[in-house]
Amino acid sequence: MGVIPLTEAPSIHPSFPPSLLAGSSEGLTEVFAALGEAIDAVRAAARPTGPIPAGAPADVLLSAAQALGPARLPAEGLGGKAALQLLATTLTEHGIDLSHPRAAAHLQPPSLAVAVAADALASATNASLDTYDSGPSAIAVERWLIGVLIDLAGLGKRADGVLTPGGSLSNLLGLLLARDAAALRLGLNARQDGVAALPGPVVFCSELAHFSVQRACAALGLGEAAVHPVPTDERRRMRPEALAAALAALTPDQTPLAVVATAGTTDFGSIDPLPQIAEIAADRGIWMHVDAAYGFGALFSERLAGRLAGLELADSVTLDLHKIGWQPAATSVLLVSDTSAFTALDREVAYLNPTDDSEAGYDGLLGRSLQTTRRPDAVKAAATFLTHGRTGMGRMVEICHDLARYAEHRILEEPELELVAPAELTTVVFRYRGGDPADSDRLNGALRRRLLESGSALIGRTEVRSGGPGSPQRVCLKFTLLNPTATADDIDGLVDAVLDAGRACVRLTEESAA
Amino acid sequence: MGVIPLTEAPSIHPSFPPSLLAGSSEGLTEVFAALGEAIDAVRAAARPTGPIPAGAPADVLLSAAQALGPARLPAEGLGGKAALQLLATTLTEHGIDLSHPRAAAHLQPPSLAVAVAADALASATNASLDTYDSGPSAIAVERWLIGVLIDLAGLGKRADGVLTPGGSLSNLLGLLLARDAAALRLGLNARQDGVAALPGPVVFCSELAHFSVQRACAALGLGEAAVHPVPTDERRRMRPEALAAALAALTPDQTPLAVVATAGTTDFGSIDPLPQIAEIAADRGIWMHVDAAYGFGALFSERLAGRLAGLELADSVTLDLHKIGWQPAATSVLLVSDTSAFTALDREVAYLNPTDDSEAGYDGLLGRSLQTTRRPDAVKAAATFLTHGRTGMGRMVEICHDLARYAEHRILEEPELELVAPAELTTVVFRYRGGDPADSDRLNGALRRRLLESGSALIGRTEVRSGGPGSPQRVCLKFTLLNPTATADDIDGLVDAVLDAGRACVRLTEESAA
Repeated sequence: MGVIPLTEAPSIHPSFPPSLLAGSSEGLTEVFAALGEAIDAVRAAARPTGPIPAGAPADVLLSAAQALGPARLPAEGLGGKAALQLLATTLTEHGIDLSHPRAAAHLQPPSLAVAVAADALASATNASLDTYDSGPSAIAVERWLIGVLIDLAGLGKRADGVLTPGGSLSNLLGLLLARDAAALRLGLNARQDGVAALPGPVVFCSELAHFSVQRACAALGLGEAAVHPVPTDERRRMRPEALAAALAALTPDQTPLAVVATAGTTDFGSIDPLPQIAEIAADRGIWMHVDAAYGFGALFSERLAGRLAGLELADSVTLDLHKIGWQPAATSVLLVSDTSAFTALDREVAYLNPTDDSEAGYDGLLGRSLQTTRRPDAVKAAATFLTHGRTGMGRMVEICHDLARYAEHRILEEPELELVAPAELTTVVFRYRGGDPADSDRLNGALRRRLLESGSALIGRTEVRSGGPGSPQRVCLKFTLLNPTATADDIDGLVDAVLDAGRACVRLTEESAA
Repeated sequence: MGVIPLTEAPSIHPSFPPSLLAGSSEGLTEVFAALGEAIDAVRAAARPTGPIPAGAPADVLLSAAQALGPARLPAEGLGGKAALQLLATTLTEHGIDLSHPRAAAHLQPPSLAVAVAADALASATNASLDTYDSGPSAIAVERWLIGVLIDLAGLGKRADGVLTPGGSLSNLLGLLLARDAAALRLGLNARQDGVAALPGPVVFCSELAHFSVQRACAALGLGEAAVHPVPTDERRRMRPEALAAALAALTPDQTPLAVVATAGTTDFGSIDPLPQIAEIAADRGIWMHVDAAYGFGALFSERLAGRLAGLELADSVTLDLHKIGWQPAATSVLLVSDTSAFTALDREVAYLNPTDDSEAGYDGLLGRSLQTTRRPDAVKAAATFLTHGRTGMGRMVEICHDLARYAEHRILEEPELELVAPAELTTVVFRYRGGDPADSDRLNGALRRRLLESGSALIGRTEVRSGGPGSPQRVCLKFTLLNPTATADDIDGLVDAVLDAGRACVRLTEESAA
């Protein structure tokens, strides 16, 4: 391998104390002290009175950017205390507060204190899941969590799973496994040769499936055109008979890769009829992926778990504990009913899992993921599950469901508001009534922006078809209720804020028309 | 939209205190207290004396699993204190310690205390990057960090970037943009129609490029066969003339999508000749992606920055601040030289970025990522950069480089060791001499497992071609030196541990032969 000349050994002048590094005993003390100081800075900061800072977005973003200073690595550092103080102040003064009772916009819960503490502990070790010697205990914790989730999902003994950085990537991974399995059945090796030889790939999902299904098909080289949306019923669930008809209508030059059922649509929480879809998929030998990113959390509650009946029939399942599960992002999971599905991802890498090492047990979870380095997101979720148990997790889900039902009730009582979709899980979709459809769309959009700009409430919006297929989309408002410490009074405050903003917008429109 | 009957309003019985949630003022206090207790548990735990617990992998994993108990969600929780104590103990007793002076296996640095504290603060807010109202200040921090990195990379005014969950996914994203741009030049819409119509896609990279290039091509529907490895020179850098020849040899039914240059190979830290590769790529109008996951960190140091000359010519760049940058995983970044590259990822989503909201500035970073929810990994890196400045970051890089040079020197002095590759960045590849090639391969593999199983040192391994193209791969050992608090004595300890293990393995072999 050639002769390399002997150079002079460099002299090394260490100038950093052991407390530089989080994993050392001194470093853990340093993390703790630094966090304490950062928390003091959060407390001293001028926290917005509402859940989001008041002001137009451009102004809020500019203020935050100005607080951070020029986007250039400074020649000399400020030291940890000043830097953390600056970031703590910036995050607090120009950021959102999801624990605020009027924060109800997205599937983005306030994180649990225990999860944040556990995650900090995991970050301090900087373990990674890819190979045994990058973090044995982190591997054990992930395997424990996967076991718990398989049990909750009711999947069988051959089931397996892996954590991913988010629901969009879990869906992508599920569809990748489905794609490569379908190719294999046609005698094709998609991993080696790509998808060019795969005739007319088709992925079915409900018309209300998450847009990440389209994005995944684009990324996987199938194209968004591969996605065939299946119509939904009046409760916003995929119509199984429409799925069966669409499958029957396939031509021989088309390859059905997967049916994606949604268990908990983003806007409505509606759950596709899983048993019927599973039967249709099984009849045709097609992969069934269930996007339960949002809905999986219902399994924590005995009251709501029945809604996910049929989940155990899936070939793969996406679930996000950073939605219902109150984890800081991200704690997404892909479960598969059969561990052999992961062979599409297997890789033997000389520096990670050579054969002799693998045979001796020195192997990690590289072969279940598209990632190499992978952070131990399982630790925070394990800490949460052990802390609260099923009773505690279930109670959190039920409170959020009750909050949504309470909001639904209140909306029905308000003549200015129109309930668009009832509370299936923890969302409620509604409109502020007013004017012809176009005016009303503008009004609802403006109403929400008014709430955000005033900083008084953080609510969601979406678009909903006004009638049957082909009817126009209407702008709607949405509460996503994920705060298990919130009360009925908080919901009343939220609805009152919507009513105030709606009236103000109507007044402004009338004034400008006058 | 149909009449929905009025149901009775549910009564809501909150049973959780405000301190449940990390984002509340009470919750932050709770996070702090809980972390303090977890740290006490870490201190009280029986920490292994070395960087990795002693024992065979199966035994270590079993012990950790037993500590966690049955993989089932318990009916009742243990409470936060007991749960965190259990996890802190498990992570410590069965996990690795990257701050240990004899931890030198992977591109997995010990994390900085300031980064862990800042990340905990960010997790407490649970901001997300996808839309304005999921976290304005987090968006501002990411934009700040991207600006800093663009400046360091020397990219121009039209440059842009986004954080991703890891280098493998940054490479995938870069190749996705390259793929869709190449299709567009042929009049194809890959996003809509997939890649079936794209004739003979080819991605060039050096034969020493990271395996994530192959994995990305498999995921993107191009197939691993799309990857054309280009031979390297004696310093393990892509040969530009070989690249030019490979390009010239393409047939009309082939489509070159990208050239991937590596700036810092995983094993050797070798850096492909970026200016020459850029010239060849530009001549042919081909996308140049630079995988600088490992090498980018050299830019922090004035002494080493020159090695990355030509980086500013890339169309896209992967960099991992969780490699050289001392962040807990993950803080990977994809930079692009022209923000218009991201149009391949644009999506308009009714619940996230409808037109009227986008026009009013209520838009986030959804259109730069394959993710929807995205954690604010930029916060910890921003805190680190502000704390240490370029001087501090540069000094850390230089110390690690010096440690590698010191190790190289020490290896050259030891007759039992053979230096295989000199220290370009912070790795050193070497072998324990002994026997014929097959025996020696077994010996080096066994030596490393012996170190791991005894728990005395955590070193890496890889395989290196013994001569020119086609010559057999030989098992080698590797130090990846990323601890800026380590000293020359620590390196001596590491080398001594290797020598001891090597002698023991030789003795065992001789005994079993006798």
